[in-house]
Amino acid sequence: MEGRGAYNLNSALQASGAALALPVFEQAADSIPLEDASRPIVIADYGASEGRNSLIPLSLAIRVLRKRVGPSRPICVVHTDLPANDFRSLFATIEGEPESYAGDACVFPSAIGRSFYAALFPNSFVDLGWSSYAAQWLSRSPGPAPNDIFGFRSAGPLRRAYFDQGRADWELFLTKRAAELRAGGRLVICLPSLDEAGQHPAALLLDAANATVGEMLADGVIATYERERMCIAVYPRTPAETLAPFADGGLGVGLRLISNSFSRLEDRAWIRYREDGDAPALAAKRAGFFRATFGPALASALSGDDIARRDFCDRLEAGIRRRVTDQPAEIVNRVAILSLAKY
Amino acid sequence: MEGRGAYNLNSALQASGAALALPVFEQAADSIPLEDASRPIVIADYGASEGRNSLIPLSLAIRVLRKRVGPSRPICVVHTDLPANDFRSLFATIEGEPESYAGDACVFPSAIGRSFYAALFPNSFVDLGWSSYAAQWLSRSPGPAPNDIFGFRSAGPLRRAYFDQGRADWELFLTKRAAELRAGGRLVICLPSLDEAGQHPAALLLDAANATVGEMLADGVIATYERERMCIAVYPRTPAETLAPFADGGLGVGLRLISNSFSRLEDRAWIRYREDGDAPALAAKRAGFFRATFGPALASALSGDDIARRDFCDRLEAGIRRRVTDQPAEIVNRVAILSLAKY
Repeated sequence: MEGRGAYNLNSALQASGAALALPVFEQAADSIPLEDASRPIVIADYGASEGRNSLIPLSLAIRVLRKRVGPSRPICVVHTDLPANDFRSLFATIEGEPESYAGDACVFPSAIGRSFYAALFPNSFVDLGWSSYAAQWLSRSPGPAPNDIFGFRSAGPLRRAYFDQGRADWELFLTKRAAELRAGGRLVICLPSLDEAGQHPAALLLDAANATVGEMLADGVIATYERERMCIAVYPRTPAETLAPFADGGLGVGLRLISNSFSRLEDRAWIRYREDGDAPALAAKRAGFFRATFGPALASALSGDDIARRDFCDRLEAGIRRRVTDQPAEIVNRVAILSLAKY
Repeated sequence: MEGRGAYNLNSALQASGAALALPVFEQAADSIPLEDASRPIVIADYGASEGRNSLIPLSLAIRVLRKRVGPSRPICVVHTDLPANDFRSLFATIEGEPESYAGDACVFPSAIGRSFYAALFPNSFVDLGWSSYAAQWLSRSPGPAPNDIFGFRSAGPLRRAYFDQGRADWELFLTKRAAELRAGGRLVICLPSLDEAGQHPAALLLDAANATVGEMLADGVIATYERERMCIAVYPRTPAETLAPFADGGLGVGLRLISNSFSRLEDRAWIRYREDGDAPALAAKRAGFFRATFGPALASALSGDDIARRDFCDRLEAGIRRRVTDQPAEIVNRVAILSLAKY
């Protein structure tokens, strides 16, 4: 991962999608059973990255819980991400940001560095779960596409492999979380969503990134074997795919669907651009977002050192910036918000 | 912190001191009450750094516990260190090393990035604690000494300030741990120890480091204001100081002293040197150890970037290596091992 706060500074999209989920998370925090005062309350944040986007939802949930249990009941907040995540930035964010929940002396933050496709907690351990813009990342890449760093956009058997992996991982993610939740526990999930027709809202931006990587290959900046390893192992789902595990009432995955919504997100950068006509400013935001979200996964395919990886990300960002400046476009992102309860 | 596994690779001294504590830790694991099978067992590793030196003691404790409770009772292992610790290396070590306990599917590792002079867990949460070569680090520096990066070696009022801080922090460390332990819980601590006369076993090595830093200042490699900020905030204690909080039976800190030992450690590098006469090899070990243990704290005083900090550490290591090559010396380290029980 690139780390050093890059994700914290370039994840406004993820934050605005998660903002829509706040009332849902608030309601979840208000509904979990808390009778047994002898034990701490456990909140899990699945796929926390560097933590910035977790502070507001978690602080909100803690305020709701404090109203219910008073100031002295211990609350354990556990942030999870992959082992290579920048946990130093995560802890700096938790301990240093003014909007952090760490001011509450009876809140105990910690972190887990393990894939959420494995068991992260003992069974029946978690009271309340939050996962925002994380479960679209697959447990493994079904393989790189020859002409696209986004394998899910490929055709034929590879497209099928992404579809299968996307379905299997979604069910696995939900099943693991169900095991970790206590009886009556709740889980709120935000995910980027395609529309019903399966259109990706930022197709032009993905094209720009793809063209930039192709250019780096043509210019010899990256080697063929490095390009062949480059693959963004994400699988954004349609609403039907997102809801599929709950078609049987969620019995298969062990989670009941309390509510779901699929919302279009306002493209604030585009609105700003329509006002000021500043294409380079729009392009800088798009490129910064892309770099922070996907740069580390692409750069991990390089055989060079940190400096080579940073240089790659610099070039990627510059190439996207140039292309978006030439062809600015609106991006109407969609967010899926699910509220789930343990059976 | 320098991170990237530097501590993992250069902390043989700490590992050999901790090795003497293994039977003590084994006994502690065997004696904690585990009747309530409905809850996970919690093991805390206070001051874990990059984790390598924790694997053997924690794996041992887990084997003892598994014999007592069987394979399926969940065990939560929580590694703590400062927020700036290299948690990425820590998680890579836990998940990747063959001698790790992570092969046990019912062990759940996590980490806390917060000073152990604060509360890290809810009250009565921890069953078994381990802390190796950590509690000699002070909560804050009582101030830099003008001519020595090791302030505890100063004289006059500053020496007194180190003494006071060393006493206050030791009591604070113990008090916080007592609060976190469950009734009947145990804590095993390894600490570097001075002899009764207060002599530091590696005085010549500290002198070599000090002279190297002085040389960097004279050569303009570091600025005066950077040198003035450089201060290793450690306070190694005499046996009497280590045992002082238990003079009243430990009532003041809330921990009963089950056993204590103060042992001399064999200087393996010196024995090897006496066999092969290879002074540069001895010097490389000493310098690598010093850099991994104290380099990050010194480099944090620099105003430059990561590259400047790495350059500083390179020069520090080279200077120590040169000086030790010129004047090889035996280092008879001592280790204090305490076994403590919650009152």
